[in-house]
Amino acid sequence: MSSIPDQNIFPHATGKAAETVAKHQEPQELIFHAGWFCPFVQRTWITLEERSIPYQYKEVNPYKKEKHFLDINPKGLVPAIEYQGKALYESLILCEFLEDAYPSYKPNLLPSDPYTRAYVRIWFINKSIVPATMRLIQAQEADKQKAALEELLKGLATFSEKIKGPYFLGDEFSLVDVAVAPWIVRDYIIRENRGFTRDAAGETWKRYAERLETRESVLKTQSDKEHYAEIYGRYLRDEAQSEAAKAIRAGRAIP
Amino acid sequence: MSSIPDQNIFPHATGKAAETVAKHQEPQELIFHAGWFCPFVQRTWITLEERSIPYQYKEVNPYKKEKHFLDINPKGLVPAIEYQGKALYESLILCEFLEDAYPSYKPNLLPSDPYTRAYVRIWFINKSIVPATMRLIQAQEADKQKAALEELLKGLATFSEKIKGPYFLGDEFSLVDVAVAPWIVRDYIIRENRGFTRDAAGETWKRYAERLETRESVLKTQSDKEHYAEIYGRYLRDEAQSEAAKAIRAGRAIP
Ligand SMILES: N[C@@H](CCC(=O)N[C@@H](CS)C(=O)NCC(=O)O)C(=O)O
Ligand SMILES: N[C@@H](CCC(=O)N[C@@H](CS)C(=O)NCC(=O)O)C(=O)O
Repeated sequence: MSSIPDQNIFPHATGKAAETVAKHQEPQELIFHAGWFCPFVQRTWITLEERSIPYQYKEVNPYKKEKHFLDINPKGLVPAIEYQGKALYESLILCEFLEDAYPSYKPNLLPSDPYTRAYVRIWFINKSIVPATMRLIQAQEADKQKAALEELLKGLATFSEKIKGPYFLGDEFSLVDVAVAPWIVRDYIIRENRGFTRDAAGETWKRYAERLETRESVLKTQSDKEHYAEIYGRYLRDEAQSEAAKAIRAGRAIP
Repeated sequence: MSSIPDQNIFPHATGKAAETVAKHQEPQELIFHAGWFCPFVQRTWITLEERSIPYQYKEVNPYKKEKHFLDINPKGLVPAIEYQGKALYESLILCEFLEDAYPSYKPNLLPSDPYTRAYVRIWFINKSIVPATMRLIQAQEADKQKAALEELLKGLATFSEKIKGPYFLGDEFSLVDVAVAPWIVRDYIIRENRGFTRDAAGETWKRYAERLETRESVLKTQSDKEHYAEIYGRYLRDEAQSEAAKAIRAGRAIP
């Protein structure tokens, strides 16, 4: 079975995300190095859009590991940003950076109260939903799929207990919502291929997922579904060669 | 081979750490739930000591999973804090919380410049040094030990490239140093049992390690070496039943 190399991804955003990209071509102090397809990128992108921070969008194919991009992020992963000529990366660190560097752009997605800030950080670093989703997608044998699905449902149940509704913290949209939204808009992959249902995750999760997937900033950073299919096909056949896919396969934390 | 249950740990701090504990018995707004032996605890403890933040030290045996403690941290892990009656946990999130809640206690360990803050966050979350050290300790077969040692040395080399000296950021002691120091003071375990040497990690790392292990706040939060031996013996025989040990064994991210 010949695997399509990861480098061959559709080269640019489509649909609503393409409209957003088109509006962010002008040079800015902040350059956003992004891959249209990437859920980690989408976290930072949602943050930029929510807070109307000026940015220049640059499409990167991170699988090509081009020298110019490795100079920006030695790990070779999107998202990354250049800000006043200096480089930063890691999706959630970028979201926090945008809070620190652009405090007056509203709404702030990290509350000002010290306790609530820490609480948001506890819940935005989710060590179960993201890895369990990836394990579920990459699992080939029925027993492994079953175990990963159970792990995911358990993670969603723990998270759901804390959802105040409509957003995680209540009325206030925060980085907890930003961090998880990209996995919600991609859950059709496990619904169509791995027997996941939102109903199985419970009423609270289901309502929360519906709320997040219809939020303007989430819609504006989504490309047409058809172009994701090729990428996720490689994951579903466990042929993907991304750092994350390799880490899941090797029993390592996702980089 | 009968394994000593993890619950049977020496019950309190000794040596210099015992003196520090003795000074922090009075009730305070901030209660620090700690285990004297725990490297994650030591991160938060170093931060409290560096910044002279008032706290009340409470010794917890996290392996016992007592109801009172699970109410504070449902994950059942130390460190945790209670602050004005509310609970928080996760070592690095606690360190950041102390910055947010006690901004006037000097020195600040997270710089004020937004770029440098993000840079510190990139480097304090180290996904190679800590898990590779744990894999090295738990590995039983020679080939697995060799692979883990190589992985660790690679992680240390990548980190060392960024050490400005004497501390990670230069003259300023920061949360990057705090995050890694507890693993440096415990590296005798892999030096005595797994063939690690600081020389193999390079001159920069060696000097950095010596600087950190002699820092006042690090010394003040260390117990006598002999009491760690029983705990690490279980790890070295791969008998430990801690959440971290089980995660390493199962090929999962450390919780
Ligand atoms: N922890 C990183 C993960 C970023 C990541 O894995 N991005 C993927 C695309 S979704 C990537 O750039 N992959 C390139 C590769 O794996 O070689 C973050 O949160 O930003
Ligand atoms: N990610 C946590 C890890 C804390 C942790 O693993 N603590 C250990 C002691 S060193 C613990 O409480 N273990 C109890 C258990 O594993 O049951 C942090 O950074 O605070």
